[in-house]
Amino acid sequence: ENTFEIAVIGGDGIGPEVVAEARKVLDAALAPESAEFTYIEYSLGAEHWLTTGETLTEETLQALRGHDAILFGAVGADPLDTRVPSGIIERELLLGLRFNLDHCVNLRPTRSYPGVVSPLRGVDEEHPIDFVVVREGTEGPYAGNGGLLRRGTDAEIATEVSVNTAYGVRRVVEDAFTRAQARDKHLTLVHKNNVLTYSGDLWTRTTTAVAKSFPDVRWDYMHVDAATIHMVNNPQRFDVIVTDNLFGDILTDLAPAISGGIGLAASASINTAGTAPSMFEPVHGSAPDIAGKAIADPTAAVLSAALMLDHLGLGEAAARVEAAVLAQLSQWAQDGTSGLSTSQRGDAFVARLSS
Amino acid sequence: ENTFEIAVIGGDGIGPEVVAEARKVLDAALAPESAEFTYIEYSLGAEHWLTTGETLTEETLQALRGHDAILFGAVGADPLDTRVPSGIIERELLLGLRFNLDHCVNLRPTRSYPGVVSPLRGVDEEHPIDFVVVREGTEGPYAGNGGLLRRGTDAEIATEVSVNTAYGVRRVVEDAFTRAQARDKHLTLVHKNNVLTYSGDLWTRTTTAVAKSFPDVRWDYMHVDAATIHMVNNPQRFDVIVTDNLFGDILTDLAPAISGGIGLAASASINTAGTAPSMFEPVHGSAPDIAGKAIADPTAAVLSAALMLDHLGLGEAAARVEAAVLAQLSQWAQDGTSGLSTSQRGDAFVARLSS
Ligand SMILES: CC(C)[C@H](C(=O)O)[C@@H](O)C(=O)O
Ligand SMILES: CC(C)[C@H](C(=O)O)[C@@H](O)C(=O)O
Repeated sequence: ENTFEIAVIGGDGIGPEVVAEARKVLDAALAPESAEFTYIEYSLGAEHWLTTGETLTEETLQALRGHDAILFGAVGADPLDTRVPSGIIERELLLGLRFNLDHCVNLRPTRSYPGVVSPLRGVDEEHPIDFVVVREGTEGPYAGNGGLLRRGTDAEIATEVSVNTAYGVRRVVEDAFTRAQARDKHLTLVHKNNVLTYSGDLWTRTTTAVAKSFPDVRWDYMHVDAATIHMVNNPQRFDVIVTDNLFGDILTDLAPAISGGIGLAASASINTAGTAPSMFEPVHGSAPDIAGKAIADPTAAVLSAALMLDHLGLGEAAARVEAAVLAQLSQWAQDGTSGLSTSQRGDAFVARLSS
Repeated sequence: ENTFEIAVIGGDGIGPEVVAEARKVLDAALAPESAEFTYIEYSLGAEHWLTTGETLTEETLQALRGHDAILFGAVGADPLDTRVPSGIIERELLLGLRFNLDHCVNLRPTRSYPGVVSPLRGVDEEHPIDFVVVREGTEGPYAGNGGLLRRGTDAEIATEVSVNTAYGVRRVVEDAFTRAQARDKHLTLVHKNNVLTYSGDLWTRTTTAVAKSFPDVRWDYMHVDAATIHMVNNPQRFDVIVTDNLFGDILTDLAPAISGGIGLAASASINTAGTAPSMFEPVHGSAPDIAGKAIADPTAAVLSAALMLDHLGLGEAAARVEAAVLAQLSQWAQDGTSGLSTSQRGDAFVARLSS
């Protein structure tokens, strides 16, 4: 029997609540498989920082490295809580994990869900959205390079250096082509290569070169500004988008917004070489305003768990979870979800998996 | 009598066609004023490059500097025309003008227009959009700083340096606050200061400082990724957005997309110190596919001309043009525009101004 050791980082606010449901669903999905999950909980996030003053220690990182995957909830303090310095949890913990565990592929699928109305008139059940963004996760403008000179004076200069390497771009583009090949065989490179000519040259040249190994995948290029127009006017045209860290950040907020499913968006931060565990997390935040009320929607965490199953080679279990979620969302689209608690929602997915 | 010398750069494709209508409308709008425009045409763009090999010479720049304003059409070759190196006209001519003429404020208003259906379900005549983006135009990631090391090898590195100065940020933020004060007194700073900490610090600090001189303007901060969500879910919340060159580029394609009016979007590239002429251009491109057919819509060029009137201190004439456009668009929303030529549309605006 296959045993996977999963690190669980519930985090802050609704994070632990939705992750608990994801675990229930994982266990139900695994029942028919000869595989088993063991879970170890890690206390990390804003609350943890408030009590310990630590965001992510070397010891914790070391311990996390021993796991097969990380199931993540959400982190972040109440924005009104001025004790937590702005951005520190995001940078030191979230980005700390991505960079230290070499999560080069930040995978963010976007699709239409039953009962979820898109804010776009052109998106409906007959014209659904279904694409994935493969966002680079370990370099680009996120590298943290840059500086401030003469801070606070009239002569102040601030720089930010986007760092892009052939090594870093190629592995992400290869991953994106591989995913496109398994989907609708259409890849779109998004960049701004008419202005950012150095990095744009590297991205465009790399994509052109990698494309040769994927002759059955057609690919096109789109400027990031134009990509936002297409997302609004014809999001159905996208299958797989590959892009850099910052453009990917922007497009993967726009993408779930146009599907109407920001609350449902799942993501995976993948170490493609398998040298460290990959991480699976809902895109939504810790939502301190509804924390502790048992009303958070665990669907995004459950869908993130499905991405984890898929990543661990348990594709059939992943497919079962996705099917259960789709079926249950359809049901709820008819019945409504008013009054349903977080765990009742999780139980409903479990019931579908067990039936 | 006040005479303004206007440089006219029609450019490529439909550019000269729509600019011709803008001129007609300008002259009609000026009739009641003690002001007059003289026009000098400059041949610039992809066609010009093909015949001369020049994008923007020092002589042309010098001549342009002598004008009170520049009325611009559109530039760019047919994308299928492989004779024109990709990006050269955009960089050397468009960005060349912005940087050389110190167009620090790139102003892009977005609003709902009668008869123009937004792709968003939440935007309609009862819930219209009306905001402006003040995009920085002369620094940031557009500075052209960066480089490629070991090009074409596995060890290649490409960098892009975003350059931000107190000088450059402050003048744009001041301009944005001034505009907010004259509108709904609400300014939103858009950045990504949790990740781009150096430039984010400069932008946030500058905005906080400038805000003190505008106590009647309330302001808030939004990450660029979150801004895309708000644009889709609640664009009515925005009044004035101030942001950097690259974020502004992205948001000002998204903005007209959500209003439904990409074809109607106007823009101004403003030298706030008055040391060189400002430039007024429609956001749409040269549309080579419909060039020469006399079917291009001149509305965006006409609205850009209205921005020029306003900039030149001819606010009443500007208001008349805007009112004429709105009235005529309402009319067309009922009658339809099928079969109307470019000049018939221009004539309709002129008729409204003259009646
Ligand atoms: C919280 C922030 C650092 C993060 C990012 O910018 O990557 C978030 O926006 C995301 O997309 O995961
Ligand atoms: C053509 C290009 C260089 C330009 C820009 O990126 O600024 C365009 O997208 C714009 O927004 O005016």
